Amino acid sequence: MMHCASIVSAPSYAFPFLSGSASTTPTAISLTKRSWKPPPSMAKGPVRATVSIEKETPEANRPETFLRGVDEAQSSTSVRARFEKMIREAQDTVCSALEAADGGAQFKEDVWSRPGGGGGISRVLQDGAVWEKAGVNVSVVYGVMPPDAYRAAKGVPTDQKPGPVPFFAAGISSVLHPKNPFAPTLHFNYRYFETDAPKDAPGAPRQWWFGGGTDLTPAYIFEEDVKHFHSIQKQACDKFEPTFYPRFKKWCDDYFYIKHRGERRGLGGIFFDDLNDYDQEMLLSFATECANSVIPAYLPIIEKRKDLPFNDHQKAWQQLRRGRYVEFNLVYDRGTTFGLKTGGRIESILVSLPLTARWEYDHKPEEGSEEWKLLDACINPKEWI
Amino acid sequence: MMHCASIVSAPSYAFPFLSGSASTTPTAISLTKRSWKPPPSMAKGPVRATVSIEKETPEANRPETFLRGVDEAQSSTSVRARFEKMIREAQDTVCSALEAADGGAQFKEDVWSRPGGGGGISRVLQDGAVWEKAGVNVSVVYGVMPPDAYRAAKGVPTDQKPGPVPFFAAGISSVLHPKNPFAPTLHFNYRYFETDAPKDAPGAPRQWWFGGGTDLTPAYIFEEDVKHFHSIQKQACDKFEPTFYPRFKKWCDDYFYIKHRGERRGLGGIFFDDLNDYDQEMLLSFATECANSVIPAYLPIIEKRKDLPFNDHQKAWQQLRRGRYVEFNLVYDRGTTFGLKTGGRIESILVSLPLTARWEYDHKPEEGSEEWKLLDACINPKEWI
Repeated sequence: MMHCASIVSAPSYAFPFLSGSASTTPTAISLTKRSWKPPPSMAKGPVRATVSIEKETPEANRPETFLRGVDEAQSSTSVRARFEKMIREAQDTVCSALEAADGGAQFKEDVWSRPGGGGGISRVLQDGAVWEKAGVNVSVVYGVMPPDAYRAAKGVPTDQKPGPVPFFAAGISSVLHPKNPFAPTLHFNYRYFETDAPKDAPGAPRQWWFGGGTDLTPAYIFEEDVKHFHSIQKQACDKFEPTFYPRFKKWCDDYFYIKHRGERRGLGGIFFDDLNDYDQEMLLSFATECANSVIPAYLPIIEKRKDLPFNDHQKAWQQLRRGRYVEFNLVYDRGTTFGLKTGGRIESILVSLPLTARWEYDHKPEEGSEEWKLLDACINPKEWI
Repeated sequence: MMHCASIVSAPSYAFPFLSGSASTTPTAISLTKRSWKPPPSMAKGPVRATVSIEKETPEANRPETFLRGVDEAQSSTSVRARFEKMIREAQDTVCSALEAADGGAQFKEDVWSRPGGGGGISRVLQDGAVWEKAGVNVSVVYGVMPPDAYRAAKGVPTDQKPGPVPFFAAGISSVLHPKNPFAPTLHFNYRYFETDAPKDAPGAPRQWWFGGGTDLTPAYIFEEDVKHFHSIQKQACDKFEPTFYPRFKKWCDDYFYIKHRGERRGLGGIFFDDLNDYDQEMLLSFATECANSVIPAYLPIIEKRKDLPFNDHQKAWQQLRRGRYVEFNLVYDRGTTFGLKTGGRIESILVSLPLTARWEYDHKPEEGSEEWKLLDACINPKEWI
């Protein structure tokens, strides 16, 4: 029943479902030790992975589910099934809301599957009235984890030799780049990961975790916008656990760090990974709440800023910040770098890049200017609420 | 006499003077085994390096030489001194020729030094009549190589324990991005590397090598332009060794490969690295000949194309190819990735990025179109002469 694609040795990179963006790489993956259960800190170093890739097949229609096999596909109560349902509903809701706000442009959809199970739906809106480029992708991935990875993570006694452990991962990933330099870019990504219980290691458990986040990248600071955005993130967090917002806010500031610039790519939001030390139902509800908070957190800001007049100088500054977005995604983002090195669906991975970007030599905003204030907040993250 | 900056452990990356571009990272470096003498093949995997970095100091004036110490600075016959003289003359010649062709814009110069020796001159012309962005940098770097690296490379008997081996590296690096989509981007880079003979390992030799190349990245193919460009490269090669052009042409096609796209960034030229199996004087003359060939290979093409009329569609295609340039430089180029990870002078490293770039989702040129022909030649490298 289990599909096991041919395993090839690949360069050392992180696991896409641990990433900030583009984590919906449609790739069947098997993991080695270090990527199986990384520390919840923001370790950015390379992680060894053995990767198996199946070529995706384009599909004419969206299937009811990307889950495979009769048992999985017919289950409506499993966390896998409910998470897939949640991200596909979130994709529909977000895309409809964005189309309505854009007032004309429509998302173009690409559907694909993999012979061994899993698949995805990419939706992209390009050159709209409001958005320069907006991508909202979902995907489901089946892979196989090498036994050492599972054993190391779960403390299986060394005299037991579990075989390869199948895993499942599903996620939604989105980047929205507006045209108006006063309207911020948004990124969000929510993902769920689960292994089977190894059949030949009695007592070794099934494992699962959640990851994700939503973050805002404006070119100019409107304090009321940033406060509104962070407030909605905090509200979503506070419904579940009072420590979530401060912890995930800091995690976000740490993750979206462009090390060679000494600055963050934007003004943050929330980010979390490897989350499994709470009730599973609670975390499913939390991820759902976060995904449902995207539109209320973002669209009121867009409505206020999308039609503000701007000049060439302000547009150029937005483009320079887009350049930073490209630098972060191509150099640091774990999902993007993993996807590029392992041959995921390139167009889905790189949909996170802006339509246009700019690099000026040694550009320094004038001290005290609006551009300088944004840069200062990217260098020195602030508490917004 | 020898300066030894504090050594910090850094992530694993390649040696900047082995790189295609931006290799003039102003960084004091010490290398471990794998980066000391990599195979001349195009290994793209990460290479472990222990790196020590000194902060650069801006200088008001260009010094006579960046060589350090009385002996070195007063020598006019050493290869170090002659190579530095050559790249600084090449920088002057190239910048003057570009300014004349641009007809108005001037290069802005930044000079810096490092307390322990070495330094560099960055020159950037931005938003000219012909060039959108043109950078021509030279630099001189002093560093220290860990003993294991030297021993492994030179086959020093294991009972001998040489101490850290000082090295010297100098290079010129340039990327020229024109505005007109029919005028091609040019990159060139020439570098020289040398170690001291280890004092405490009798008989262990001084080591040196040369690297570099010149390559052309058009958005549209004018066959006569590409033939002219490659002919000049071949002429420079043929003056020294008939195998050089075919060998370095293929090396160039292999190096500038955007693996996740399955395409090269442009139409190639020549590229070589770790070159030390010829007479040292011959290779110094060869590098000089290559650097002197930049203007005759490139400017006649610019003169023919800089004023051709173009439309928005052609400009957008150029911008998409600029996006590929960014992808190659940020994801694959060994000098850039090394520089970013180890804290070189960021503005000098990233001057290779175009002023503007573009990414469209799933863009595919129409089969048989001029854009398709360029893409085809990037996917399937051709013999131009």
